[in-house]
Amino acid sequence: MPTTIDPAARACFELGIKFGSLYHQFAGTPVSPTSADALARAIEASIENQPYCTSVGVVIDEAALASAIDDIHGYTELTGTLMDVRVEVEVEGVSAVAELVDVEGYPEMQITSLDA
Amino acid sequence: MPTTIDPAARACFELGIKFGSLYHQFAGTPVSPTSADALARAIEASIENQPYCTSVGVVIDEAALASAIDDIHGYTELTGTLMDVRVEVEVEGVSAVAELVDVEGYPEMQITSLDA
Amino acid sequence: MPTTIDPAARACFELGIKFGSLYHQFAGTPVSPTSADALARAIEASIENQPYCTSVGVVIDEAALASAIDDIHGYTELTGTLMDVRVEVEVEGVSAVAELVDVEGYPEMQITSLDA
Amino acid sequence: MPTTIDPAARACFELGIKFGSLYHQFAGTPVSPTSADALARAIEASIENQPYCTSVGVVIDEAALASAIDDIHGYTELTGTLMDVRVEVEVEGVSAVAELVDVEGYPEMQITSLDA
Repeated sequence: MPTTIDPAARACFELGIKFGSLYHQFAGTPVSPTSADALARAIEASIENQPYCTSVGVVIDEAALASAIDDIHGYTELTGTLMDVRVEVEVEGVSAVAELVDVEGYPEMQITSLDA
Repeated sequence: MPTTIDPAARACFELGIKFGSLYHQFAGTPVSPTSADALARAIEASIENQPYCTSVGVVIDEAALASAIDDIHGYTELTGTLMDVRVEVEVEGVSAVAELVDVEGYPEMQITSLDA
Repeated sequence: MPTTIDPAARACFELGIKFGSLYHQFAGTPVSPTSADALARAIEASIENQPYCTSVGVVIDEAALASAIDDIHGYTELTGTLMDVRVEVEVEGVSAVAELVDVEGYPEMQITSLDA
Repeated sequence: MPTTIDPAARACFELGIKFGSLYHQFAGTPVSPTSADALARAIEASIENQPYCTSVGVVIDEAALASAIDDIHGYTELTGTLMDVRVEVEVEGVSAVAELVDVEGYPEMQITSLDA
């Protein structure tokens, strides 16, 4: 890696990796009110394994989930509109946080904190 | 669906769907000794949401996991060689079971029971 | 595998595996009118690698895709409502076909042909 | 987003998202010499849909693939050790590139260029 890539840039890169991984690994998973909590805990524990990751918080929104479930099947597939996600990483003393933020009805991954 | 597709055939089809779903949804998930149990519980709870599925049992093998983890990263990615899986479905009174069976070193999905 | 599992049951099991694999491997993939064709071809070629699979046909519906794409991002995520899928397998001379069928607005995987 | 997150940091974040997405969406896909090219093209076209992404290059290594394929099945599952990946993004005039780099036998995602 070129020496010009400072720890703050690397922290932001690592945050992005965690978010992209989390989303594309778990989106599409069948989810219902009875399985939501187990899924949220597994997502947190799985992504926390990745390098530089200090904490992952996932909350599957009960009301959003209830609206998304159809009466025929009793479950739906996990998407970004059903969850709140907060990921924190630390690279060489720089910590950074990103969250899934609602932007005009779409979940958008954003850096919400970057501290040297 | 044509009337010639009997409940036993449909039960086998449903079993296959559960196995393919489980494998391709969760293979690749970062996994370590500390996150394995949460992941196994989430896989079970998620797939049990699917239609006709009466039970899912997932055991991530501690010894296989320990061998697969590399010293640099402390985790690996979930694959079929790391887990035992048992899925049971019931379609119109016919229950069927499939398991991930080791065949010459490769995990193979097989129907292990089919009862009218 | 017990001797009581006949080739027809196994063909249905294999069909289910292909469908579950296809869906949970590729659902969530970013897709737009410019990338839809490449994605459909890759899904076909990938799943045709699996054992007993003789043919896979995937069509991503242009009109459904156009409706699903939002104006801000120009793409959406692949789901079952955006595609037609047909999978054919053959096990010991028994061929079987399954398709993604619209049932009350939801895509449902169904066996549509089973010939000894 | 706080005003302190400059375009370079955001470019690195976006790069990370693309890499994590690409890896966890497509890892595990059945792949063989006959399907590798279609898969590589679909990965490129799919990820290029994502915001700020100006180019994605994926090469599935023929020799690595040949070694990974087992004689029984004729295919394997896509992993990071089988491919070269290069992703380029541009955020407010800042372009950044990341690549999958071999580090002691493991594929590691690294920023390889960051230009204001």
